Amino acid sequence: MSEIFKNHLQKFIEINEEEFSGILSFFQVIQVKKKENLLVQGQICKSHYFVLNGCLRKFFLNEKGIELTIEFAIENWWMTDNFAYERGLSTNFYIQAVENSEILVINSEAQEKLLIEFSKMERYFRFVYQRAYAATQVRLKYLYDFSKEEFYDHLRNSYPEFVERIPQYLIASFLGFTPEYLSEIRNKKRS
Amino acid sequence: MSEIFKNHLQKFIEINEEEFSGILSFFQVIQVKKKENLLVQGQICKSHYFVLNGCLRKFFLNEKGIELTIEFAIENWWMTDNFAYERGLSTNFYIQAVENSEILVINSEAQEKLLIEFSKMERYFRFVYQRAYAATQVRLKYLYDFSKEEFYDHLRNSYPEFVERIPQYLIASFLGFTPEYLSEIRNKKRS
Repeated sequence: MSEIFKNHLQKFIEINEEEFSGILSFFQVIQVKKKENLLVQGQICKSHYFVLNGCLRKFFLNEKGIELTIEFAIENWWMTDNFAYERGLSTNFYIQAVENSEILVINSEAQEKLLIEFSKMERYFRFVYQRAYAATQVRLKYLYDFSKEEFYDHLRNSYPEFVERIPQYLIASFLGFTPEYLSEIRNKKRS
Repeated sequence: MSEIFKNHLQKFIEINEEEFSGILSFFQVIQVKKKENLLVQGQICKSHYFVLNGCLRKFFLNEKGIELTIEFAIENWWMTDNFAYERGLSTNFYIQAVENSEILVINSEAQEKLLIEFSKMERYFRFVYQRAYAATQVRLKYLYDFSKEEFYDHLRNSYPEFVERIPQYLIASFLGFTPEYLSEIRNKKRS
């Protein structure tokens, strides 16, 4: 299972076996069950999660108590509440498993030590954050440019496997639809 | 003027004078006039901009030809179309000076060379992207959670100097208001 992480690292940096086991020793591997929470609103956000297998989502509750999903992480993606994680603050978010998942976990102090001991991990995380930032900027443009319905069409066309994989009520929660409205749109497109 | 950049670097990494002049040699300093474009839709995005003094904005034109501003950069912030910059692609955005500005510029090849020659700059850019990513995630939550009017109130309360500094038609373009609607809200709040 750690091969998945090694392959991911090797897309960005060169590491040998010895370095990899040194790096891996900063992490824990955990199994989480579908719908299990890794992070709960109000907790101090101490951990950074890397998906080896499965899927996580990050959501918050709006004033009406409705869950709004703002991010998914599938294999090879990192997830945390980055603002709270860097500053050791309590979070406004939940992080929950969408499927039974296998997750690498590191806490913020260990991550800082890792970066000091293996300085090539600075390059790795520079790439990770750079790409995550670029992806979020693209998403921001969609939020300005697309109606919710257009965004759904875009998702379906660009990531059909993702849309099939994720329960429809979560896709609705990501798009800001009610599940009923999403099902209406899907039926309309089929007919 | 380069002192501004040195101070910024030193918030994240330790560098001496000699290292700093080495680092600085990878950059150019340019002066841009208010409303001058640094990047135009359709161009290959080759440059990364750091604001020493002044303000930049990034916008795109929607189907109706209306400018939608998705980001501002004031002193000590970086700006580019990150997705296009990393991949050497053409951009869908404009980057324009909001005020007469003094800007540090680096191109993508020079940035890669800089990172190889001064590996501590990996740490610096890791912080830059990490914070920019975290800030964009916070913004994403606002877009899900706030009405446009609530977002305006939040901006006014959290960044009053910024809202005073930026022309109101650009604040409107950032919020997705017409300038007339923004002026209506402002008058309502005053009365």
